[in-house]
Amino acid sequence: MAHEELSNSTIFPLGKKVEANFIGDAYLQMVFTDAAPLNAAIGNVTFAPGARNNWHSHQIGQVLLVTGGEGWYQEEGKPAQLLKAGDVVNIPPHVKHWHGATKDSWFVHLAMTPGATEWLEPVDDATYTQL
Amino acid sequence: MAHEELSNSTIFPLGKKVEANFIGDAYLQMVFTDAAPLNAAIGNVTFAPGARNNWHSHQIGQVLLVTGGEGWYQEEGKPAQLLKAGDVVNIPPHVKHWHGATKDSWFVHLAMTPGATEWLEPVDDATYTQL
Repeated sequence: MAHEELSNSTIFPLGKKVEANFIGDAYLQMVFTDAAPLNAAIGNVTFAPGARNNWHSHQIGQVLLVTGGEGWYQEEGKPAQLLKAGDVVNIPPHVKHWHGATKDSWFVHLAMTPGATEWLEPVDDATYTQL
Repeated sequence: MAHEELSNSTIFPLGKKVEANFIGDAYLQMVFTDAAPLNAAIGNVTFAPGARNNWHSHQIGQVLLVTGGEGWYQEEGKPAQLLKAGDVVNIPPHVKHWHGATKDSWFVHLAMTPGATEWLEPVDDATYTQL
């Protein structure tokens, strides 16, 4: 999907291409970084079809609010869950997981992250392509 | 605007009509109420054209993420600010303010609220109609 099409599909700005810890074309725009009143920064993350982040975990956890497209959320050892606009995911602390677009759709979510993230290995093609 | 049209304009569920502390037709659906990892509950608020909440203030503050339509945010003694999709407002604690739709547009925002809200008097028609 062209950059311009992705841009038109988002409510919040597309931001810049993410270079590290992702496979495929993904974009990040931080939309809230103030120290108060929330305990979390908020980023708008846009994944092109087939794009996903590496396996990772969050020290305190993370909340995803899906605003567009279709994507996957998978915790290690569990089936991947299909996500669509309006879905909300509460990711527990210290749980290894990944998220990203489906093969055929762009995927956009807000990510609210109160603490640090530990990045791990990429999601291999065998795991992803069987979804 | 018809209920059905409003429903189709939202990413998150429309929820139920708000009965107290609002003028006009407004709807609220809580989308995140877990105790962790965020310090704030998240509500999806949809205002029909002309709908607005009463003057109020937040003990800790509030963050608005505008997801659709056009609306107003006004702090007491300051000009109202026009809000559109993609706008983010960080409302300071203890600042008297209101928000709501423009006369001609529906307006949808996520509201992240870490603490209590003190509700005050309605926004009078003279204040609203001059916008």
